[in-house]
Amino acid sequence: MDEKSEQPARTHPGRTGRTPDTSRRSESSRKAILDASMRLVGEVGYNKLTIEAIAARAGVGKQTIYRWWPSKAAVLLDAFTGVVDEESYQQGIPDTGDLAADLKAVLRATVDEFNTPSFEAPYRALAAAGAADPSLSEQFVRRLMEPGRDVYVRRFEAAREAGQMAEDIDAAFATELLLGPFQARWLMRTEPLTYEFADTLVDYVLRGIAPR
Amino acid sequence: MDEKSEQPARTHPGRTGRTPDTSRRSESSRKAILDASMRLVGEVGYNKLTIEAIAARAGVGKQTIYRWWPSKAAVLLDAFTGVVDEESYQQGIPDTGDLAADLKAVLRATVDEFNTPSFEAPYRALAAAGAADPSLSEQFVRRLMEPGRDVYVRRFEAAREAGQMAEDIDAAFATELLLGPFQARWLMRTEPLTYEFADTLVDYVLRGIAPR
Repeated sequence: MDEKSEQPARTHPGRTGRTPDTSRRSESSRKAILDASMRLVGEVGYNKLTIEAIAARAGVGKQTIYRWWPSKAAVLLDAFTGVVDEESYQQGIPDTGDLAADLKAVLRATVDEFNTPSFEAPYRALAAAGAADPSLSEQFVRRLMEPGRDVYVRRFEAAREAGQMAEDIDAAFATELLLGPFQARWLMRTEPLTYEFADTLVDYVLRGIAPR
Repeated sequence: MDEKSEQPARTHPGRTGRTPDTSRRSESSRKAILDASMRLVGEVGYNKLTIEAIAARAGVGKQTIYRWWPSKAAVLLDAFTGVVDEESYQQGIPDTGDLAADLKAVLRATVDEFNTPSFEAPYRALAAAGAADPSLSEQFVRRLMEPGRDVYVRRFEAAREAGQMAEDIDAAFATELLLGPFQARWLMRTEPLTYEFADTLVDYVLRGIAPR
């Protein structure tokens, strides 16, 4: 991946005209900070996470962090934006013509992701903190949830054009019907996230939105 | 309501054989503590809530609280169990024969409830803390969410017996399809909770689970 595209544009240390060596060191510090913030928030939760602890884990001074980010929330949001697979977001959900199969494949992949502790723990810490804090949840939703949601919206729109979905249903609402029970089950830990759950969810949502 | 039925049985101060006056004072302290805990958690969040602050707000010594409850979580769970309308839980969702109308009526009432700050703020604080803390979420789900969920499960079971729902669908899963998008929208604040949302949700879920 192009190095510049990974940097927050306004704070890219390379833009100050330093030598390539300095820039490389900055980039490696930046990666260490983002990695440390993800691991730590999964370990101690959002409320107990501090810039000091991130700095210590990353092996940098805390001023290095404050030079690039205004808050721990900003660090974490960049860290998560870095791990999501932007290429897969751009490509969207495959359209094989079989809506159910396409949705099940991507929802099963999400089941795998949410059953992976190194992803799940920090994501949960951020979601739980967002539930309590409106300004954080606004950023969490806009930067992390919406890009993930939009790939479903586009797939539902394609399905409607293919006549596989009722004309009058909003693709964003169809997405909410599908992802809402998944998110609620995950956040409240009411039942485990399984392939069977993903498949059943897809089947019933598609019956609900089928053309009449 | 019978006074004893409101008390946690094992800690009811009246059971120690004190005079009626002492028992009445205890009951009024107990109510003050529960009220204070609800208001405070909505104001400061779960993490910053302390037994000391609840005691100060309730005008009791903190030993009074520790005599009856082992933790702030225990106080809050009792406080919430006290405000939910147990009688309406026992009666369940009205069965007029019109499943859609019955579900819309109760889901609209839930919209009203979640748009009431004195209920919403403490409930959100507890849900957010539960999302981060597995032992709290287990209690939160069992004591607060499941009784509310069970009234839907019973109504869906009645609908299935009346032939209004596919034979092979699990009533608990139908409930999850209905309440999941509501809970996710609420917790993540993605969109407002409105009557229109409640009605649309009911309509699409019922189409999904209709007999084939």
